[in-house]
Amino acid sequence: MEINKGLENVYVKETSITYIDGELGRLYYRGYSIFDLAELSSFEETSYLIWYGKLPTQSQLDEFKKRLAEHRELPASIVDFLKKVRKDANPMDVLRTAVSMMGIEDNNKSESLLDKAISITAKIPTIISYYHRLRKNLDLVEPRNDLSHAENFLYMLNGNLPSEIERKVLDVALILHMDHEMNASTFACLVVASTLSDIYSAIVGGISALKGPLHGAANSEALKMFIEIGRVENVEEYILKRLENKQRIMGFGHRIYKTYDPRALILKKYAKDITRLKGLEELYKIAERVEQVGIKLLGSKGIYPNVDFYSGLVFYSLGFEPDFFPTVFTSARVVGWTAQIMEYLQDNRLIRPKAKYVGEIGKTYVPIHNRS
Amino acid sequence: MEINKGLENVYVKETSITYIDGELGRLYYRGYSIFDLAELSSFEETSYLIWYGKLPTQSQLDEFKKRLAEHRELPASIVDFLKKVRKDANPMDVLRTAVSMMGIEDNNKSESLLDKAISITAKIPTIISYYHRLRKNLDLVEPRNDLSHAENFLYMLNGNLPSEIERKVLDVALILHMDHEMNASTFACLVVASTLSDIYSAIVGGISALKGPLHGAANSEALKMFIEIGRVENVEEYILKRLENKQRIMGFGHRIYKTYDPRALILKKYAKDITRLKGLEELYKIAERVEQVGIKLLGSKGIYPNVDFYSGLVFYSLGFEPDFFPTVFTSARVVGWTAQIMEYLQDNRLIRPKAKYVGEIGKTYVPIHNRS
Repeated sequence: MEINKGLENVYVKETSITYIDGELGRLYYRGYSIFDLAELSSFEETSYLIWYGKLPTQSQLDEFKKRLAEHRELPASIVDFLKKVRKDANPMDVLRTAVSMMGIEDNNKSESLLDKAISITAKIPTIISYYHRLRKNLDLVEPRNDLSHAENFLYMLNGNLPSEIERKVLDVALILHMDHEMNASTFACLVVASTLSDIYSAIVGGISALKGPLHGAANSEALKMFIEIGRVENVEEYILKRLENKQRIMGFGHRIYKTYDPRALILKKYAKDITRLKGLEELYKIAERVEQVGIKLLGSKGIYPNVDFYSGLVFYSLGFEPDFFPTVFTSARVVGWTAQIMEYLQDNRLIRPKAKYVGEIGKTYVPIHNRS
Repeated sequence: MEINKGLENVYVKETSITYIDGELGRLYYRGYSIFDLAELSSFEETSYLIWYGKLPTQSQLDEFKKRLAEHRELPASIVDFLKKVRKDANPMDVLRTAVSMMGIEDNNKSESLLDKAISITAKIPTIISYYHRLRKNLDLVEPRNDLSHAENFLYMLNGNLPSEIERKVLDVALILHMDHEMNASTFACLVVASTLSDIYSAIVGGISALKGPLHGAANSEALKMFIEIGRVENVEEYILKRLENKQRIMGFGHRIYKTYDPRALILKKYAKDITRLKGLEELYKIAERVEQVGIKLLGSKGIYPNVDFYSGLVFYSLGFEPDFFPTVFTSARVVGWTAQIMEYLQDNRLIRPKAKYVGEIGKTYVPIHNRS
């Protein structure tokens, strides 16, 4: 009996949502290339695509945008929680708790899973922006339902309307993070959902997993690394030292991609533009140099930049603080989670693997006064 | 590429915690038979055994009981949450949220995982009892650290000291629920922990999974079925009708046991005693008859009563309401979850399976005004 550590190369379901070609560095949602979607689509259109399986017509998209926009407001109990929660909390802990509270507040049993997915997806940016502003002692900026998902997110976060380039960069970043076939957080959602627990519980499971530094928190680790390096001249020495000490380069390597993660390629371009706009060129140059040095040293082993390498730079430029990066990741990935949950439940099977026992059995229970 | 639906018979780790012999109907914790532990041990001693790998000496047990008892009080923010949360919430949603809040409140980075496991385990009965009493508009009963874990739990729940038989029955029930090798909730904990997320996130993942009717909520479903049947005379017709309609008999069948679940055998004896004490003999008799009829009809297929079959009767007799049963299950299983997490992290590997893509690729992105 073989141990499938990490379930590497174990297939847990069929899917028609996302396809990754790890050899060529290609990613498709519902058959559409991520290069096209990043360039030409929006958060709303790609969400529609992932949930419904096809691109919307104009009237379908209009209707869908309206539905999403209508669900942005939070129940009073969650606003109250955000106002009272400690200011030094990890934002992923706050988001996990707030979504868990959403599950308490929602006692509408007639809604479909997709209705609930839309509501949760609409509310997550509000939770993130509110906690961001409360932590900085800034007034809350209530959602505006005349703005697109990305526009409204940046409006609530920063308190003013974003520029067109900011809006575009966030749309692109969210599209790139929306789904990624199977992965630890999506799989956590499925394990929960497979017990026929509710969708909030499943998403809470996903958030819990995405929080980990081996998963959604890698983006903030990568940015922290660029900041720590400080100057382009320091890159080579820093990276060599890190590899000598058997430390990984944050934002490098992926279990599926053996070449460039296409999401990193796309984000790089936008990271260059947005960092210039925000006076963060130096950080971008450090990242670019880390990329060059990293690929020279690791590329032959199939270790290349992944999505987390440039996403931190992008999120930072848009006004998100590093410990919030995994929450922005969540705000996009929730679309994939819910789509994968709905797909799995069409032919549910409780996920219950086994462990191989390697201890003794048949020990004699010795009364406590005879133990030593 | 084969799909391992439900990961049936897929081994994800080695373990020296729990061994199930599904053919013979045997269960061992750290090599000790569940029959001995249920009869002779206590919640504290068996927790110690599962966490430390060996039975404690008297002084080790005394010290350990003291540590557990000292951590029963909740942070003020959680008490505040429990007081304000809606009274008609699912208790598992409340527990999931409260444990998530614990993760926010705990910013002690120097504690070990075991320290945190002890603290979480000590606090869960307080959360359950507080919400139970708040929901019934009863005064809160604060934990007493001179009582054992089981005694204090019933004391906080019911507002008076339990009898010796009540204490014993709860100790037995908790011991029986403490671990069960791999299962959906334990596996959810591991998927989360494998990203190097924190222990609260991992447990929140476990609670999220245990909430499901195919997992921890089966016990309340079984009890509801007994109540619905109403009279012993109705059992046969009810069960036959259920099977005709392709409905499962709640509390029957298990993916691993092909004979009696030993936990059901043990609980049956205690369920008989405690239901008599509480004037619930009729429900017990209905359960016993369901068992007979069920085995006659399904036993040849290896479908027998599992732990959930009699545990609901036991929990109900002790003062827990049916929707709270999965929370009582959680209060015990958290010991197994945390032990399995610590064991897994000794040789961590990110849990990231795959999905097999069965859709199209290479679709052309058509501009929105050209779609139909």
